[in-house]
Amino acid sequence: MPRSSKIRTPLVLLNFKTYVEGTGANALRLAKIAEHVSSEIGISTAVAPQLTDIRMIADQVEIPVYAQHVDAVDAGAYTGHVLAEAVKEAGAVGTLINHSERRLKLSEIDEVVRKARSVGLLSVVCTNTAAVSAASAALGPDMVAIEPPELIGTGIAVSKARPEIVTDTVSLIKRIAPKVVVLCGAGITIGEDVKAALRLGTEGVLLASGVVKAKDQSKALMEIATAAVQK
Amino acid sequence: MPRSSKIRTPLVLLNFKTYVEGTGANALRLAKIAEHVSSEIGISTAVAPQLTDIRMIADQVEIPVYAQHVDAVDAGAYTGHVLAEAVKEAGAVGTLINHSERRLKLSEIDEVVRKARSVGLLSVVCTNTAAVSAASAALGPDMVAIEPPELIGTGIAVSKARPEIVTDTVSLIKRIAPKVVVLCGAGITIGEDVKAALRLGTEGVLLASGVVKAKDQSKALMEIATAAVQK
Amino acid sequence: MPRSSKIRTPLVLLNFKTYVEGTGANALRLAKIAEHVSSEIGISTAVAPQLTDIRMIADQVEIPVYAQHVDAVDAGAYTGHVLAEAVKEAGAVGTLINHSERRLKLSEIDEVVRKARSVGLLSVVCTNTAAVSAASAALGPDMVAIEPPELIGTGIAVSKARPEIVTDTVSLIKRIAPKVVVLCGAGITIGEDVKAALRLGTEGVLLASGVVKAKDQSKALMEIATAAVQK
Amino acid sequence: MPRSSKIRTPLVLLNFKTYVEGTGANALRLAKIAEHVSSEIGISTAVAPQLTDIRMIADQVEIPVYAQHVDAVDAGAYTGHVLAEAVKEAGAVGTLINHSERRLKLSEIDEVVRKARSVGLLSVVCTNTAAVSAASAALGPDMVAIEPPELIGTGIAVSKARPEIVTDTVSLIKRIAPKVVVLCGAGITIGEDVKAALRLGTEGVLLASGVVKAKDQSKALMEIATAAVQK
Repeated sequence: MPRSSKIRTPLVLLNFKTYVEGTGANALRLAKIAEHVSSEIGISTAVAPQLTDIRMIADQVEIPVYAQHVDAVDAGAYTGHVLAEAVKEAGAVGTLINHSERRLKLSEIDEVVRKARSVGLLSVVCTNTAAVSAASAALGPDMVAIEPPELIGTGIAVSKARPEIVTDTVSLIKRIAPKVVVLCGAGITIGEDVKAALRLGTEGVLLASGVVKAKDQSKALMEIATAAVQK
Repeated sequence: MPRSSKIRTPLVLLNFKTYVEGTGANALRLAKIAEHVSSEIGISTAVAPQLTDIRMIADQVEIPVYAQHVDAVDAGAYTGHVLAEAVKEAGAVGTLINHSERRLKLSEIDEVVRKARSVGLLSVVCTNTAAVSAASAALGPDMVAIEPPELIGTGIAVSKARPEIVTDTVSLIKRIAPKVVVLCGAGITIGEDVKAALRLGTEGVLLASGVVKAKDQSKALMEIATAAVQK
Repeated sequence: MPRSSKIRTPLVLLNFKTYVEGTGANALRLAKIAEHVSSEIGISTAVAPQLTDIRMIADQVEIPVYAQHVDAVDAGAYTGHVLAEAVKEAGAVGTLINHSERRLKLSEIDEVVRKARSVGLLSVVCTNTAAVSAASAALGPDMVAIEPPELIGTGIAVSKARPEIVTDTVSLIKRIAPKVVVLCGAGITIGEDVKAALRLGTEGVLLASGVVKAKDQSKALMEIATAAVQK
Repeated sequence: MPRSSKIRTPLVLLNFKTYVEGTGANALRLAKIAEHVSSEIGISTAVAPQLTDIRMIADQVEIPVYAQHVDAVDAGAYTGHVLAEAVKEAGAVGTLINHSERRLKLSEIDEVVRKARSVGLLSVVCTNTAAVSAASAALGPDMVAIEPPELIGTGIAVSKARPEIVTDTVSLIKRIAPKVVVLCGAGITIGEDVKAALRLGTEGVLLASGVVKAKDQSKALMEIATAAVQK
């Protein structure tokens, strides 16, 4: 499976959401922080900015850029939709799919995962339960990111508060589709959270507010990245 | 109403949809064609490319750039959504809202129209019937674009095939919200279609496949623009 | 406008939502309470139970029964959808449309309002702002019910807490479509709330938790109905 | 798994959609035909009428009644939604979920499958591809019904035209969740189609237009049922 092998783990994937601190000029600055942390610590970081910022960031940083969402449409008469080909052309190497803030129909996830594969984008399906993680893995994405929505943005890390949802996800996915890389997210803010996540069998974390909204974004990300390589 | 007064009419607004011919490098080329036609003919043209291409085009052409869609969300935890502020920061001056290929809930249209106004984006609400046009005008957008979906992409111009839907829209809107600029679209391909649209009381047209998918995009747009100034 | 003239006002319309206290046998019991209050006080009451209970209630009570929602579909291959004709055949005389807990696209509201008219169902479009009320009135429904969602279920009555949203709705609607009957809802729990609503120019109220979740549903509704006739 | 053991197979499940021929009085008549065929042939039939007709049919026929859709909501403030408890109380024994004409988000399917189990409704998740079937099986429903949407309503049976999608579904599901009963649907009109479906490893069929829209519904269903028992 050559594409997944392109994913260098542990992966620290930073979702900018639609935070002011992750929009436009702020997005570029934050992406450069992530790039700096990557080269400083020697860890694999990636960023998921808004659609309008993908090209600018992909042009100016070396780390991988992901879209936050892609629609289940082909090129054509789909005004206002997000075309996988357009995201790829702008410089993204992958895309989040079905984030808890942008849930998709099951048939759409199937379509987008296949679409991503066909245009050469890595796919990260976000999930909310172990059963949904298993279901998503059955669709053959590159990665699954388990994120219980009730913990997102709380600073209460899934890897500490709900370890069983992570281990259940890992064990179900390993049974159904062992090549799928498992990430976890929600509430991950400090290095301890990341270490716990990796100990539970994941190969990376999906971060957002813990870094994007931090007073010192660089320091926050540096701490997390340092923990990830120490494991 | 100072903002609407910034709309120079007749307006020829070109929607790139998710057509290959309007994506990435093709989008930039097409935007430059629209810019050239504008300066050549002395007419107001504007382009609505995909989100990933807004910044690149706004950086390199002088004509106004519109988003194809904006979500009813504020800055915050809205992964995968389209923030009005982000679209504005990337260089757009306005946005389509509720295109027939991206219909919104009524309450969302109300929110997005107000959101657009507050961040300084022009709003173009797309509609499918005269009653929906009247309803949309009651929300106070800058423009309403009537486009019967059954004619979109057919090459059968609304202004020729369904003139009554255009005149009904114009008269209802003039009664409810006379400052709203009325555009029409669907099937507009040749100069005659544009002349008919303007004669029916509209102040511009919303184009897509007739130009984007034309063998010679420049010639197609030039003919339409020429007709628009001759009226 | 013969259909609207069938609406006897002031109207007290009770939405059962999906509350346990308004489901199945409880729904029938509550509808009989509403029927009893109607004949006792001589006021126009109506009930909006769940779809599965419409026929049972319409068969056993004399007051009007409304659906809580109808889909913008015709008879045909629309599995899982709510057909206006089916609701009518089961005994409903009208339907709520676009309730804040079941928002519709603008184009769907237009379709459902027309559909309701064509099959002989009264239409009550629910709205959240004065602008959305004006927009809805432009679609020609029989009634508009203004309900600021932030007050729904709070016991803080819209007619006391946000009187201006009610008077703005009434004045905009009277200008755009004067035959449309205006109701208001959200937080209406006691007689005073209803009197205030009628004083602001509405012709009825849309109730839910204040009665459905009351310890003594009969007493709660009786108080509201008594206030409505006293005005 | 005691609940699934309540499913007598082969199962012939008839979806009434929103067809006129399956609405109201017609729905009751058609359900009685299905009941007659069941007792005549000694086969397991079931019907999925519209929500407004569930109670009437469940009260008057002996065969199992399914809802066509249930929403991912609990009792409460969910106006216009379909509550699993309400459907159950009205007499349904199960529900279709995620029909191609009423697709759900993945997280909703997970919720509805669990909700159905908790209130005692059988769950039939409808799917469009083998991968989606595998994903659905991972959620632990009682049944999965594979129905390629492009064949629905065509009279071209999935079991003849796309046998590989059926066998792939059966083999993937047997590996992931062997207790899940597999049905297939789309285009099934004559006895031969049913025999082919059962030979491919399914334990029943999901029918609609082939019977509901047949000139002689009774004859059409009798032929299919006869074929199912002959296998």
